[in-house]
This record gives sequence, structure tokens and C-alpha cells, in this order.
Amino acid sequence: MLIREFHEPDWAQVWPIVSEVVRGQETFPYDPGLTADEAYDMWVEVAPGRTVVAVGGDVVLGTAKMGTNRPGPGSHVATASFMVARTARGRGVGTALCRHAVDWACERGYAGMQFNAVVASNAGAVQLYGREGFAVVGTVPGAFRHPALGRVGLHVMYREF
Amino acid sequence: MLIREFHEPDWAQVWPIVSEVVRGQETFPYDPGLTADEAYDMWVEVAPGRTVVAVGGDVVLGTAKMGTNRPGPGSHVATASFMVARTARGRGVGTALCRHAVDWACERGYAGMQFNAVVASNAGAVQLYGREGFAVVGTVPGAFRHPALGRVGLHVMYREF
Repeated sequence: MLIREFHEPDWAQVWPIVSEVVRGQETFPYDPGLTADEAYDMWVEVAPGRTVVAVGGDVVLGTAKMGTNRPGPGSHVATASFMVARTARGRGVGTALCRHAVDWACERGYAGMQFNAVVASNAGAVQLYGREGFAVVGTVPGAFRHPALGRVGLHVMYREF
Repeated sequence: MLIREFHEPDWAQVWPIVSEVVRGQETFPYDPGLTADEAYDMWVEVAPGRTVVAVGGDVVLGTAKMGTNRPGPGSHVATASFMVARTARGRGVGTALCRHAVDWACERGYAGMQFNAVVASNAGAVQLYGREGFAVVGTVPGAFRHPALGRVGLHVMYREF
């Protein structure tokens, strides 16, 4: 598996991943009716942000975006989001993308990285971030409507570098 | 004091308030180099969001914006932001704007209201929100660079309706 910069032609493989994740409504508080154009604008970051893909050969296994969490007096904290294709789960793609984003943010001198809305029932993600040094700093109760579980919390997670 | 819908001509009085607050860099993680046009797009909400002004006679004393905190599975939680003119502080303008926003969100059927980034050193705001039923659900350590105090925390605050 290789992680590299997103390029325009990758969208043909990235959009199905984003679409699958967003329409599942289990892991991201995004609009499930998102069109491909809206998703592109939302997922493909412009500098100083960055979007990458994890590839195995020609196949996109997952994708990440990273950037500054808040402007002005909050701009020393980075943020990132990760999506992995359903067929590529359990192979360390999410962990590799997370480490890539943390390394990127460290190199650029950010002081830490914040995840603003981690769905509390998404145990795989919460555990992955925990292994990578992120802690839950707070949970907004019931802030996410899960299609099967009903209202579950949204964690704010943070790692200082 | 009256709270009413923002109208275009109010901007001549709202922009100096926004500018003063943002350039002070003590209470909002916004870009201090924000232009008037950028500030307008950021502050003046389109439906279903809403922007209001608190006025005393013809004078704008403060302003609030309110709307949906996150799309899709997060869209049952509202958010809001408040700014009060320096010359109008200590007169209950912030409290009146906060109550207005909470009432608005309750009427529209939101389940609660979340503030995403309350500067921990902004004791006036933290106490005001506390009096209005909001609790700190977590604090991202050092996520805000205060010009005098250095790195202070950013609270996530929440009130269930």
C-alpha cells in the first residue's frame, strides 16, 4: 500500500468510497444527499490543506483529507478525515492514513490535531485514533442520528504533538 | 432593547462590531484579516439559518447568527454565535441574544444547541452560557492563541432542549 497525493483522475475511484460512506450515515455527519460535485468540493482540499489516496496497485483503498481546523487564533491545530473502501477494511488502511496525516501536520509545525465529530458508536475509528495517541476530550450526547442505534454521541478527539 | 431580523442596511453597524471582535482575537477563532465581504458571507446566514440584531432605538448593540450545527445525521443540533459592541457590554445584550437563539432553535424542533469553540478565558461568555443551561462537555487544551494569555483551551458547550 502506498499513500500519495490525490490527482484529478482518482476521483472516479474516490467518489464511490465517499458516496458509500456518506449514504451509509453511520460514520460522518455529512448530508447523505451530497452530489458528486459537492462531495468533490468538500473532500478535495486546496493548499495549505491536502487530500491523499491510499492505493494498492491501481486500486484506491482509502482516502484522507487534512488541513487547519480553525482560522486565526485557532490555526495552530490541524484536523483530518479518513474514509476506507468497504472492501479494503481490516487491512490497516485507516491506520496508515491516520499516521500519514499526523506526520504531515507535525512536519508543518501544527501543535496538535483535532477530530471534531467522531461517531461514538464507530468503535473501529475510536480505537484506531486511541492507538494513535488521540484522546476523547468530550462527547456531545446524542448529537448523531444512527440509522440502527438511534441518537449516539459525537466525540471530540485530540492529540497534542 | 429589541431583537429583530437582520436587514441589509444593518451591515453598516454590524460590520464594525464583527471587525472589532475578530481583530481583538480574544474571543473567536476567526481570521483577523477577514474583509467586510468575507465577514458578511460568514455572519449573515441564509435560511434555514438566521441572523438577528439587538437594537436600542436605531443603534445596533449586538448581533447573533444561528443555524444547524452539522448536516445529515447531525442536523437535529443547532448552533449559534453572538457578538456585542464593546460600548454595549454589561447590559444583558448577550443574554438576550442567547435566549433568542435558544427559543428560535426550540421552536424549530432542534434537540439541542452546541457551541463548538468557546474560548476558555472568555469568562463572561462561559458564565452566561452556564446560566442559560449550557454545560462544558469538553475542552480542547491550548487550541486558541490568546494575544495576552497565550494558548488557552476551547470549550465545546451543549444544552439539550
